[in-house]
Amino acid sequence: MPAISIKGIHMPESPIRKLVPYAEAAKKRGTKVYHLNIGQPDIKTPKIAMDAVKNADIDVLEYSRSEGSETYREKIAAYYKKNKVNVTANDIMVTTGGSEALLFALGTIADPEDEIIIPEPFYANYNGFATSANIKVVPVVSKFEDNFALPAIEEFEKLITDKTKAILICNPGNPTGYLYSKEEIQKLAAIVKKHDLFLIADEVYREFVYDGIEHYSILQEEGMDDYAIIIDSVSKRYSMCGARIGCLVSKNKAVMTTALKFAQARLSPPTLAQIACEAALETPQSYFDEVNAEYVDRRNTVIEALEKIEGVRVAKPKGAFYCIVELPVKNADHFAQWLLESYDLEGETVMVAPAAGFYSTPNIGLNQVRIAYVLKKENLLKSVHILKEALKVYPN
Amino acid sequence: MPAISIKGIHMPESPIRKLVPYAEAAKKRGTKVYHLNIGQPDIKTPKIAMDAVKNADIDVLEYSRSEGSETYREKIAAYYKKNKVNVTANDIMVTTGGSEALLFALGTIADPEDEIIIPEPFYANYNGFATSANIKVVPVVSKFEDNFALPAIEEFEKLITDKTKAILICNPGNPTGYLYSKEEIQKLAAIVKKHDLFLIADEVYREFVYDGIEHYSILQEEGMDDYAIIIDSVSKRYSMCGARIGCLVSKNKAVMTTALKFAQARLSPPTLAQIACEAALETPQSYFDEVNAEYVDRRNTVIEALEKIEGVRVAKPKGAFYCIVELPVKNADHFAQWLLESYDLEGETVMVAPAAGFYSTPNIGLNQVRIAYVLKKENLLKSVHILKEALKVYPN
Ligand SMILES: Cc1ncc(COP(=O)(O)O)c(C=O)c1O
Ligand SMILES: Cc1ncc(COP(=O)(O)O)c(C=O)c1O
Repeated sequence: MPAISIKGIHMPESPIRKLVPYAEAAKKRGTKVYHLNIGQPDIKTPKIAMDAVKNADIDVLEYSRSEGSETYREKIAAYYKKNKVNVTANDIMVTTGGSEALLFALGTIADPEDEIIIPEPFYANYNGFATSANIKVVPVVSKFEDNFALPAIEEFEKLITDKTKAILICNPGNPTGYLYSKEEIQKLAAIVKKHDLFLIADEVYREFVYDGIEHYSILQEEGMDDYAIIIDSVSKRYSMCGARIGCLVSKNKAVMTTALKFAQARLSPPTLAQIACEAALETPQSYFDEVNAEYVDRRNTVIEALEKIEGVRVAKPKGAFYCIVELPVKNADHFAQWLLESYDLEGETVMVAPAAGFYSTPNIGLNQVRIAYVLKKENLLKSVHILKEALKVYPN
Repeated sequence: MPAISIKGIHMPESPIRKLVPYAEAAKKRGTKVYHLNIGQPDIKTPKIAMDAVKNADIDVLEYSRSEGSETYREKIAAYYKKNKVNVTANDIMVTTGGSEALLFALGTIADPEDEIIIPEPFYANYNGFATSANIKVVPVVSKFEDNFALPAIEEFEKLITDKTKAILICNPGNPTGYLYSKEEIQKLAAIVKKHDLFLIADEVYREFVYDGIEHYSILQEEGMDDYAIIIDSVSKRYSMCGARIGCLVSKNKAVMTTALKFAQARLSPPTLAQIACEAALETPQSYFDEVNAEYVDRRNTVIEALEKIEGVRVAKPKGAFYCIVELPVKNADHFAQWLLESYDLEGETVMVAPAAGFYSTPNIGLNQVRIAYVLKKENLLKSVHILKEALKVYPN
């Protein structure tokens, strides 16, 4: 039998999906499972977006342009301008999700064996994208104790080699919920300029920012035109994960020209979804205000409840809808599996994502889990109650 | 300024898109351009597919499963069974176009520096996918004189090295329209078994087969379960290019397990489009019969007209909707550009795809173009007339 690739063997499995068979078995036994493990919000997609698709009269469902529909890109540019990011349609390429924008960005700037520095814990699929592009992820540890603030500049500089091509940040962060301050972005800007690196910022959660703090984009920072690449997505913004639409934004012409070659090879992003997304840009501010109020409420609820459990600590998130939680267990991986396999409280249990999968350094975060507060408040409260009772009887 | 990747520099530009600026300039001058250069059919998308989207009631547009929706995969399996390809839903992974299926297949079986043998001329984007995966394309020439039949087995064996991981064919072929016979598939099966290689067959045109000949899939051939990987797509089948839905099909468990890791990293294929595609599978046979009759008519029309032009030869296609045409010019690239830049017949001209871009060996096919017969008959006739008149005055 022919052998699969070495890269294929090393492709990481999603840490979130690893527990899926246990969750399915639990459901088969009749146990109700609360999903705190995934970033699939329960928020309604704006009706205006779905209606645009219903009302579209399409005779031939054609490819769009490889860089995305012209009118949609113009409107995305207007969205950014409103958000103090001064870009034009030419600086924007529509992609099949933020996922594809990440793949294009990596392919555009790095060759096999090249290195990308990423503060960890980080969105686990960065590992998959890097592996599939044969690129090495070099983690720099951000600490639970510091609430996951940007590691010191020296920590980055220790890691920069000839092979380093970029620093990749996620702002606000998945899985940490951490929001970088303007000063932190300025520090990063200084490093990439000094060492001639790209700064890639995954800003897919840019609208999910709480407590009156403003998001500061890498493209708001002066002098970053040559260095900055933004990854964005409609998935969470409009609760349209299934649209598979995102974008890559850069004012660096060589980056855009090269990324376009990757885009042309795969022909075009989805046409129907672009119609929905173009309409979604008309979503009134009230939608976001309501959604953000809901997330703030959920965050406060879940954190307050969690912190009441003995031995539990939470790194308080300022954005996105995730938080990293330290549990009084040795191995959160085992605990998460045990919750699904061997535990239930009156027929209900909870699925959480063990945080070790978000670190690339071995043996960190073993007692941590990531919680996505994407459920209604009452279900969040039930879930935390289940966690609390489970911890009492868990054979650590 | 940070440098882009070497791979990015080498990413080939689409040979079809290279002439686009000239076509746009021609249109700006008021010249009508007949597009014989692209595989975007003018055929209507089945109404049943678009209606399914209109009628879908979606509150939250969620991610689908990474491998695609369960019900859709079941129905695809039924489609294949009806077409004598005996697979189950587990052997099928839904992808974002055939394009993504190709990327997953290459990533699953080949590492940087590995080699894939492809009969040329071939679908130009294979070059892009290979470059982005750092894989080397090793071409084996199939000849215009032979109507692009499978090259002799010895020609393949000459090229097989330690690094060879697969043979990739396109059946029926873009850009040749060539349809491999059962005997040719059996020869390929024998080589891959002997040398322990994968056989990847891009069967996206499997329904477009003419003259009463039957398509013979690599998975119809006995004993190919471990070796065969099929690439498929709805793009042309239902004239749904903008859906961006395709699939990867294999009975090799290691291939499917590995490909799933790539699929999980990018989360899911488009949800709306999967709804359309599931419904499209209910398209009655009469739709295909009509479409095929239309293409046969177009093919016969265009070929008959072309062959009447002095010095023009056509390799007669038995499938897909492309043909390679030899022109009495030294450099078809220059001719194609001249048609757009400096020629018009009563305000009309033609855009064709120079065939050199479909060869990976330099200096072959310089006098060839690919013609896509995706226009109505009368427009095809007009286009050929324009070509004929243009050749009379072209300063060769
Ligand atoms: C940080 C981050 N980046 C990128 C993505 C990719 O999202 P999508 O491909 O749906 O746009 C996600 C999805 O969860 C994410 O959390
Ligand atoms: C031979 C061949 N393979 C694959 C594709 C990719 O098509 P898609 O990604 O739209 O499924 C095409 C599109 O033209 C093609 O001609």
